Amino acid sequence: MLVPETFFAERTSLLKASEIRQLLKWVADGGIISFGGGMPSPSTFPRQQIIEIITEGISEHGDKLLQYGTTQGLKELRSELKSFMEWKGISVPSIDNILVLSGSQQGLDLFGKVFIDEGDVVLMELPTYLAAINTFKAYNPEFVGLKMDDDGIIMHSLESILKELQSKHKKLKFLYTVPTCQNPTGVTLSMERRKHLLELASEYDFLIIEDDPYSLILYEPIDVTPLKSMDAEGRVIHLSTFSKILSPGLRLGWVVADDRLIEKFVLAKQGMDLCTSPLLQYIAYGALERKVIHENLIKIRALYKTKRDKMLEALETYFPEGCKWTTPIGGLFIFAWLPEKVNTKELIQDCIKKHKIAYVPGQSFFVDRSGTNTMRLNFSYPAMDEIEEGIKRLGQAIKERL
Amino acid sequence: MLVPETFFAERTSLLKASEIRQLLKWVADGGIISFGGGMPSPSTFPRQQIIEIITEGISEHGDKLLQYGTTQGLKELRSELKSFMEWKGISVPSIDNILVLSGSQQGLDLFGKVFIDEGDVVLMELPTYLAAINTFKAYNPEFVGLKMDDDGIIMHSLESILKELQSKHKKLKFLYTVPTCQNPTGVTLSMERRKHLLELASEYDFLIIEDDPYSLILYEPIDVTPLKSMDAEGRVIHLSTFSKILSPGLRLGWVVADDRLIEKFVLAKQGMDLCTSPLLQYIAYGALERKVIHENLIKIRALYKTKRDKMLEALETYFPEGCKWTTPIGGLFIFAWLPEKVNTKELIQDCIKKHKIAYVPGQSFFVDRSGTNTMRLNFSYPAMDEIEEGIKRLGQAIKERL
Repeated sequence: MLVPETFFAERTSLLKASEIRQLLKWVADGGIISFGGGMPSPSTFPRQQIIEIITEGISEHGDKLLQYGTTQGLKELRSELKSFMEWKGISVPSIDNILVLSGSQQGLDLFGKVFIDEGDVVLMELPTYLAAINTFKAYNPEFVGLKMDDDGIIMHSLESILKELQSKHKKLKFLYTVPTCQNPTGVTLSMERRKHLLELASEYDFLIIEDDPYSLILYEPIDVTPLKSMDAEGRVIHLSTFSKILSPGLRLGWVVADDRLIEKFVLAKQGMDLCTSPLLQYIAYGALERKVIHENLIKIRALYKTKRDKMLEALETYFPEGCKWTTPIGGLFIFAWLPEKVNTKELIQDCIKKHKIAYVPGQSFFVDRSGTNTMRLNFSYPAMDEIEEGIKRLGQAIKERL
Repeated sequence: MLVPETFFAERTSLLKASEIRQLLKWVADGGIISFGGGMPSPSTFPRQQIIEIITEGISEHGDKLLQYGTTQGLKELRSELKSFMEWKGISVPSIDNILVLSGSQQGLDLFGKVFIDEGDVVLMELPTYLAAINTFKAYNPEFVGLKMDDDGIIMHSLESILKELQSKHKKLKFLYTVPTCQNPTGVTLSMERRKHLLELASEYDFLIIEDDPYSLILYEPIDVTPLKSMDAEGRVIHLSTFSKILSPGLRLGWVVADDRLIEKFVLAKQGMDLCTSPLLQYIAYGALERKVIHENLIKIRALYKTKRDKMLEALETYFPEGCKWTTPIGGLFIFAWLPEKVNTKELIQDCIKKHKIAYVPGQSFFVDRSGTNTMRLNFSYPAMDEIEEGIKRLGQAIKERL
């Protein structure tokens, strides 16, 4: 290969292979129980209904669904999404406030492209969603991490940071948060703090990106009113996805925002992929219109709640003293802290090779590279018996390290 | 909306609404005949076969096709693409040399992201594909335009530019070309010039992006050996799409390149959308494996050849003296030059409002903003009778201007 290294833009070196994706490869090997990944259980995919919707769609609207579509997305789908958002408590003035995305991942890339200039400050939870870190990083922001406890971002800590940024005249672009059943911790921002966060956004004049894949997958009757529904100033950009409520293989997400922002996003998306597949959009439309998603959610919640309970029970039984973990009210993840001296990036080697168990070491989720003793555990994908056996193996591996 | 304008990165202002997309909106209005857009005829979509492939796919492999997939793409599809590329004369060492894309548009964005640093030189044909211009522009390169004639890029002109760039120590990243049945001109780079271009790439050490959506849609038995098949040094990046040979609504493209480049592309694509829908990829796999595409191509070629001939005939009949146009050997477009004094951006107003006929004014396709008297005419989408009637109306509009 004669092409010199200098052909590659420097920003390329900032794009790292995600450790999660590498973990997915290990899953493919036989015998390993994986708490890595963030995949839904395939048993929740409504296959037959999807076949029916596609067959009807292509037969009756093939000319349109197999052709180029508009960048903003199928009107039928945006109209169903408007009702769906309203069912979730978010009032959407018009379907022009909605943009359909090729997965919520595309939304992250789009926010980076539209908002971030090199050196801009972006506020991120400690820890936060790994793909968001990696995607924003490609646009060279300065990340500032926000401390969390069991109720989410600690507000007085955020306020100190905002004051400091203001005094240094730093350009703050946005705060990115997964307020409900966060990835990776499973933690949910309390209602009181949600209100406080919006007040701070108004006072210090910044945007909030609310990434919300999990708020319909709750195992307790708890109020998780979206930030977007409390947003009087158009500061909240609400991002969501069909991946956890229908199927991730459809690669469909959407964003709800002020229409001026949506206009900017549409232009940026046009350069990214012209449009999202109208055929896939029709599947999501059909699944909303026929209430396939609403019915499926009941099944998903019941299944994952049992799995969460099983994992929490196993953690109590098999994890040694000095470990602690979150008790998520919904979502797909439990986050654990081991005794300080255990480095989970080192531990994973033993776990995979000797104990045949995988998880995601937590450090990658922290923009300040702390969290060396943490791990993310997924409970939606593994089978019930794998959950008990896997936590048992993991407990054993930790005990051997201590 | 209280969010200040300064929240938007400056690069956003560089993303312009594509004139083509606006034209698509006009098509929706009744009564207008459109030679704008670049859409295939919906009559070429193999609906029934697509339904069969999806039904089989979801029934037999639903767990996999509705789940997250790998970033590089379904192995089955990449394996079929390897054979398909070899059928086209491109030898592909391994399926690791192929990356599946969410439309070839994603490839353009990906090349911008991976290769272009602000101020880098990018060489573009005069005129060239509008979406490539707009997409690369977001990464702030310096475009240098390459003069063309009926045989494509004029080599001595390219050589002068390369010498000048070298003497100025300018950083040349790549040359972007649509060598076969180019969009917008329909012009094909001659075999002699293809060889010369590769020699220059080697001598001046640059990459070539070969965008090739049309080389299987030929109406004459002409040698269009891809640049990639003549590439001994891994300098050619071959980009293609299922949009014109199967269905644009699937949003599926692919890139063939040196495996070191593919690795960089995979990392960049991961940040863009994690992966392309495995379900859609399975449709393309099925359509290749069952030879649906191969059979469909025969139908597509016959249909579009008739349409091209009809448009060429109508141009002879209805266009006034002083106009000239290309005679494409394939693809979807004819490009026309009107007398110098006619500005096609002004003319389009009359055309749409008074004569109910649309085309794309050519200026946007020129990175040097020349071509004010040019227009792109699409013949794949309009019906046969619309082609004659449309060119008649267009001829009338031009005559009124002169």
